[in-house]
Amino acid sequence: MSNQRLNVAVVGATGAVGEQILNLLEKRNFPIAKLKLLSSARSAGTSISFKGQNIIVEEATPDSFEGIDIALFSAGGDVSKELVPHAVRHGAVCIDNTNAFRMDPNTPLVVPEVNESKIDEHQGVIANPNCSTIQMVAALKPLRDRYGIDRIIVSTYQAVSGAGSRAIDEMKRQSKEVLAGNKVEPQILPVNSLPVKHQIAFNAIPQIDKFQDNGYTLEEMKMVRETKKIFDDESIDVTATCVRIPVVYGHSESVYVELKDDYDLEDVKQLIADAPGVVLVDDPATQSYPLATEAAGKNEVFVGRLRRDLGHSRGLNMWIVSDNLLKGAAWNAVQIAEIIAAKKASERA
Amino acid sequence: MSNQRLNVAVVGATGAVGEQILNLLEKRNFPIAKLKLLSSARSAGTSISFKGQNIIVEEATPDSFEGIDIALFSAGGDVSKELVPHAVRHGAVCIDNTNAFRMDPNTPLVVPEVNESKIDEHQGVIANPNCSTIQMVAALKPLRDRYGIDRIIVSTYQAVSGAGSRAIDEMKRQSKEVLAGNKVEPQILPVNSLPVKHQIAFNAIPQIDKFQDNGYTLEEMKMVRETKKIFDDESIDVTATCVRIPVVYGHSESVYVELKDDYDLEDVKQLIADAPGVVLVDDPATQSYPLATEAAGKNEVFVGRLRRDLGHSRGLNMWIVSDNLLKGAAWNAVQIAEIIAAKKASERA
Repeated sequence: MSNQRLNVAVVGATGAVGEQILNLLEKRNFPIAKLKLLSSARSAGTSISFKGQNIIVEEATPDSFEGIDIALFSAGGDVSKELVPHAVRHGAVCIDNTNAFRMDPNTPLVVPEVNESKIDEHQGVIANPNCSTIQMVAALKPLRDRYGIDRIIVSTYQAVSGAGSRAIDEMKRQSKEVLAGNKVEPQILPVNSLPVKHQIAFNAIPQIDKFQDNGYTLEEMKMVRETKKIFDDESIDVTATCVRIPVVYGHSESVYVELKDDYDLEDVKQLIADAPGVVLVDDPATQSYPLATEAAGKNEVFVGRLRRDLGHSRGLNMWIVSDNLLKGAAWNAVQIAEIIAAKKASERA
Repeated sequence: MSNQRLNVAVVGATGAVGEQILNLLEKRNFPIAKLKLLSSARSAGTSISFKGQNIIVEEATPDSFEGIDIALFSAGGDVSKELVPHAVRHGAVCIDNTNAFRMDPNTPLVVPEVNESKIDEHQGVIANPNCSTIQMVAALKPLRDRYGIDRIIVSTYQAVSGAGSRAIDEMKRQSKEVLAGNKVEPQILPVNSLPVKHQIAFNAIPQIDKFQDNGYTLEEMKMVRETKKIFDDESIDVTATCVRIPVVYGHSESVYVELKDDYDLEDVKQLIADAPGVVLVDDPATQSYPLATEAAGKNEVFVGRLRRDLGHSRGLNMWIVSDNLLKGAAWNAVQIAEIIAAKKASERA
């Protein structure tokens, strides 16, 4: 077995997603020979416990990747742009959780439940899609296979953890201030690098990431472009409104989908119930539907509120919830890593 | 002037909406001869200050309405069903804020900015639409006049104040518990009269009001039916997903509208900017868009994030925010009362 163990690097090991990646590598008993934890110079020197051993986080540099088989990146787009090419040069397969390579035509954009086979086409980099895209396409995949999809109109209800640990702290701090009757001074959200800040506590902010020239935010355009790429179908129309709400973990999405063919609602429910990685939670009689608080900490995508548009026979409303740090980031990346590890093992066998 | 003053009754005077109605009647200097405050037996006896005078709240009974010119009801559908007919019998014009008469073919359903002229058709009762419907149709009215509307797909982000004062208390209490690391025991939301409760703090609950046989909630069906009635157009397709989020005051809505004619986006912005009761807040460069925290306490409907669906030339995304207790309830009712008062004054003149 020892020749099947891999040298793994986690870049951004001290971040919110990095922490979940390490949890999953440990819990899933990933076949690790050597684990290298990397971060910015600021966080280097931190000690992180993994399977009972303390590992010192090192500063990520172009030479950090010698001998690494798989590198998982979640330290921001700029870090990936700089360091992923060096990791590839050293022979590592990079699973990148940032926006840096997602739309690169030579980089597969993978949600294993949807397009696992694309992993084989990688040229050193596999991109992990945006959190809000992953959970949506995982839920829509069985419907697309059976009925085809004409268009998607999605409105999101996104958790602050998607903006990192500091955004979580800010929301909790603001909530306490508002509950105490004090004024708040927003410092991070909606976008840390932009000048204007808005209160997130007890509010809904219709901006995630920067505005593009077309009036959409980058987050909204990610949902549009990535959905087309993952389904390998430019003809699917997607339009999105992405909104940050005061939730810690778990993105919720109100998704309206217009299928190509007439559908049977009971069949749709069965397809969702049978889909890998997807859980149907849909029983009005017991007020059962997916909730962010219940999806938090779980790897699956939860789907409910399935109902026919009363005006359009091919229109379907659904409510899709998943933990944005798990299936939306760390778990999708570790799934890909497991698939690569299995391939490497069978190649060597 | 004294013969133009009216006897006014407020039913549900101690509730969240009743309180706002009294604030507005005072602030707007409504021409009141006598003000009668009515409530359930439970709240009767409470003293409420109005223009420096303390008024004792009385129990609402069938005989409470003798001599009343205008009665504003916001004490729940059952109270309206029972007492509105008595108020009408006594000659009062009733402005009903509940769901009791909205779909009654003999009852006008009025948003003054949209269909003020319907007030003249009343037979004693004018219905105030549902909060989430009011702000949407007020914003869509100028677009419908200019371009026509084919269909509306709306997802809401609704404040807990829509479920009453006890729901606000519950959300604040739960928020404190979660921030202190304690478990919460939901008692009111999503629907007080139903057995299953869900945590609202740091969550998003896709259920407002009871489920109907078609899988939609009553809140969602209100948006469908009331929009058609207010626009007097059964051909408009509306589909809705209504969601409660941890916000105190102010409903936000992600509205996708497909117009009948091709539109010019700058013209749409100008139409919104010029519409009565509607304020355009839409400048990506300064991260300006409507926010619940900024709409709270204001009478207007705020609209922003206007942008073209990149896949459908007649598709338009917008973000509509308004204080659900004001334009969504009390202010719309007082607007109607002011119009009736002006008519009565000119009749007597």
